[in-house]
Amino acid sequence: MHVREMISTHPHVQGQTVDALLKCIELCYACAQTCTSCADACLAEDGVKNLVQCIRRNLDCADLCAATGAMASRRTGSNIEVLRAALQACAEACRVCGEECGRHAEMHEHCRICAEACRDCESACREALPQVH
Amino acid sequence: MHVREMISTHPHVQGQTVDALLKCIELCYACAQTCTSCADACLAEDGVKNLVQCIRRNLDCADLCAATGAMASRRTGSNIEVLRAALQACAEACRVCGEECGRHAEMHEHCRICAEACRDCESACREALPQVH
Amino acid sequence: MHVREMISTHPHVQGQTVDALLKCIELCYACAQTCTSCADACLAEDGVKNLVQCIRRNLDCADLCAATGAMASRRTGSNIEVLRAALQACAEACRVCGEECGRHAEMHEHCRICAEACRDCESACREALPQVH
Amino acid sequence: MHVREMISTHPHVQGQTVDALLKCIELCYACAQTCTSCADACLAEDGVKNLVQCIRRNLDCADLCAATGAMASRRTGSNIEVLRAALQACAEACRVCGEECGRHAEMHEHCRICAEACRDCESACREALPQVH
Repeated sequence: MHVREMISTHPHVQGQTVDALLKCIELCYACAQTCTSCADACLAEDGVKNLVQCIRRNLDCADLCAATGAMASRRTGSNIEVLRAALQACAEACRVCGEECGRHAEMHEHCRICAEACRDCESACREALPQVH
Repeated sequence: MHVREMISTHPHVQGQTVDALLKCIELCYACAQTCTSCADACLAEDGVKNLVQCIRRNLDCADLCAATGAMASRRTGSNIEVLRAALQACAEACRVCGEECGRHAEMHEHCRICAEACRDCESACREALPQVH
Repeated sequence: MHVREMISTHPHVQGQTVDALLKCIELCYACAQTCTSCADACLAEDGVKNLVQCIRRNLDCADLCAATGAMASRRTGSNIEVLRAALQACAEACRVCGEECGRHAEMHEHCRICAEACRDCESACREALPQVH
Repeated sequence: MHVREMISTHPHVQGQTVDALLKCIELCYACAQTCTSCADACLAEDGVKNLVQCIRRNLDCADLCAATGAMASRRTGSNIEVLRAALQACAEACRVCGEECGRHAEMHEHCRICAEACRDCESACREALPQVH
């Protein structure tokens, strides 16, 4: 990903990037992909019946991560309150999805990796929050 | 849209639909389209320079409405805290975008219509919130 | 939805809307919602094992419909070849998803409604294609 | 991103990943972020008037890349014709957006980087195509 290069060449930013936000953007896109993959892998498992809650939370998390990653990428104009609310919702989606995936981590390697991606993205959202003001 | 028909045939719902949530789903999708359109129409205006903030908020609002509409459409499993956070973020995005569009409503008909769509979607999100528990 | 009002107030369009494209935009957003709902309802069915293919095609169809609906909403600048390719891919996604849902239509009412939404959206994409030039 | 790890732990894949498709998924998500960033940076430029076409193509490219990245991540069930059509539409969106960004590459560093990301994603889509059968 070219997150840092892109944001640092934005006319309003001019090199003064906020590391916490850059990391958050990157992890939002990564987590969107991982959750999309995990929902799909869960769907292919013999025990899909026990993974229905996991799939639902994966899909919700993927939707919120994609939206938040795009919103956090925008530096033109300002939309601080909305970006903060999105980061909070996204952190919550990651927390809940990470917990659910964690429950299946021993049985399904894709859930173990996804739980990790969710936790990383949750932390990144929470660390970016105080930088958005 | 077939929101009501689809949700009411969901095996866990079986006709017991929540009107406030159905309306919210419909207005989220509608507002996503309207904000996408308004961002694009603003971009085509001679005075685009004065509409940069409006475009940014339109794009953010479109992203959050699309994510929230999809999440609110899901009835399998539960993800109450996350859906509530998304509805709140979406209501905030609609409020802020509706205010900004309202400032250009006399000059640009697309902003006037979009301000209305945002206000409708904001109300629908706020009215759906107490039903999600 | 305010598709017609929004597009007709676009500075480059000024009332000269193309009916086939307006209808296509509306049906793309509607089909994205319906397919998201159908994937979720299938996931909640006891016989989810037999609906795995259906869920996959629903999710793909929802993704392409959402992207195509947004792209077709944009009238600023031109991107004719790309919009045509998206409309073709979307029509194909709707055809394939509609066929799959049609197979479960007698058993699951949500699949019956979704098959219909897919067929309508497929037709709308195909009818919009000759208008995009 | 955990694309390789996620796909290789999918029950239907079991380690037999297709390198060209993995790379394509990664570059689709990366290009979606880059195009979202470039549209936003263009919007902030003094000469936004000359970048309207670029912004439009960036937004279209971001939408198609996001949809294609998600679709290509799914390995459950099959949807070959649709995935092929999406990859073709995505490659076309990247080609056209890369060309447009290339025209502003000397003036705007974000356009130069974005042109590169588009070309990389276009190649990856074209190289993945023969693997999807």
